Amino acid sequence: MEYKKVAIIVAGGSGTRMQSAVPKQFLELAGKPVLYHTIAAFAAAYADMEIVLVLPEAHFSFANQLLQGFDPLPAVTIVKGGETRFHSVKNGLQLVDSPSVVFVHDGVRPLVSTTLIRACYEAALSHGTAIPVVDMKDSIREIRAGNNAAVDRDRFKIIQTPQTFLSHLILPAFELPYDPLFTDEATVVERLGHPVHLLPGEESNIKITKPLDLTIAEALLKERH
Amino acid sequence: MEYKKVAIIVAGGSGTRMQSAVPKQFLELAGKPVLYHTIAAFAAAYADMEIVLVLPEAHFSFANQLLQGFDPLPAVTIVKGGETRFHSVKNGLQLVDSPSVVFVHDGVRPLVSTTLIRACYEAALSHGTAIPVVDMKDSIREIRAGNNAAVDRDRFKIIQTPQTFLSHLILPAFELPYDPLFTDEATVVERLGHPVHLLPGEESNIKITKPLDLTIAEALLKERH
Repeated sequence: MEYKKVAIIVAGGSGTRMQSAVPKQFLELAGKPVLYHTIAAFAAAYADMEIVLVLPEAHFSFANQLLQGFDPLPAVTIVKGGETRFHSVKNGLQLVDSPSVVFVHDGVRPLVSTTLIRACYEAALSHGTAIPVVDMKDSIREIRAGNNAAVDRDRFKIIQTPQTFLSHLILPAFELPYDPLFTDEATVVERLGHPVHLLPGEESNIKITKPLDLTIAEALLKERH
Repeated sequence: MEYKKVAIIVAGGSGTRMQSAVPKQFLELAGKPVLYHTIAAFAAAYADMEIVLVLPEAHFSFANQLLQGFDPLPAVTIVKGGETRFHSVKNGLQLVDSPSVVFVHDGVRPLVSTTLIRACYEAALSHGTAIPVVDMKDSIREIRAGNNAAVDRDRFKIIQTPQTFLSHLILPAFELPYDPLFTDEATVVERLGHPVHLLPGEESNIKITKPLDLTIAEALLKERH
């Protein structure tokens, strides 16, 4: 079957943690807004990628200005975000109308590589779902009633995006009623009983949530060149 | 009771992950070796702090040179490291001969603050043990036989150092035979049945294990000023 490729890039954050008037996805990283890098990565991965940008309405003009920076302009549709991540992704999924591989990606993960995007695509074709993960490097303890205990960190993996799905799995899952336990797209899709396939993510695929993260991202970009 | 204060600073790493001939604890951070900053933090926290530096014998001359940078010189004894972290700490503990609050700290956590060191001291006096922890910020999944499942990250805390103990708890624990499940000092002390008390650590108290971490540490130092 021929699948379309749709990247739903969710950039709903208001940026309060960044102590900045500019929402974090529009802050500059190596001379371009964070979100520019994110869009560019998906556009570079596949020539026929369709991008759905989910944003608060207040950021539409920011986003339109950002898109002027592309030449050629990738296929981008801007959609209004919802009350939670679940509702924002659901709004984006309204644009998926034929069999597709659907990538759901954090707008504030600008360093995602084309290699990882393509690996997610291939894995989603084979397994229906594809969630990039990396190893946990810190020692952890589990908090229990009244005490705590050491746990083996090798039992756990850290989740990244793009969380990638065949449309016939993600579309019905997002018809479920909202549940606060839906912390990411994988938890929604597995609610309908489909197993979640994990694949190796990338250490450099970091999430920009505070000013220091921009400094780290700049350093990672330099390492890449 | 009057307690002595002993900081066992463990710097056994050979630095292979740093792609550098110089072991990572001797790399420069803001013009001084990483380990210099670590020692300086403990010396600054309490005037009567005794520091035990546990190192591979091959690094003794590096360390002696580094100590020349202090004026005045803090009370530092250099001790030879062992085969594992457990054995290195055990060697350091040989120098604890009277009732003490014992801090065990990673040499490659140079940004530990005097505030955190003092908080660990006070907590160890009250609870016998004091382990600094920070929240987990990434989503995680647990790997299970044949599949995996979302888990609530709020159930887990990330462990830092200095892991701090009253000497009458840590000394007998380190007489236990070595067990590969001893991943840190807290796991050794709780083996004898003593609960592990957690207190808030610091986001900036990072571990320097790869070149990017030095860049992050430089940025954190700048934020501090």
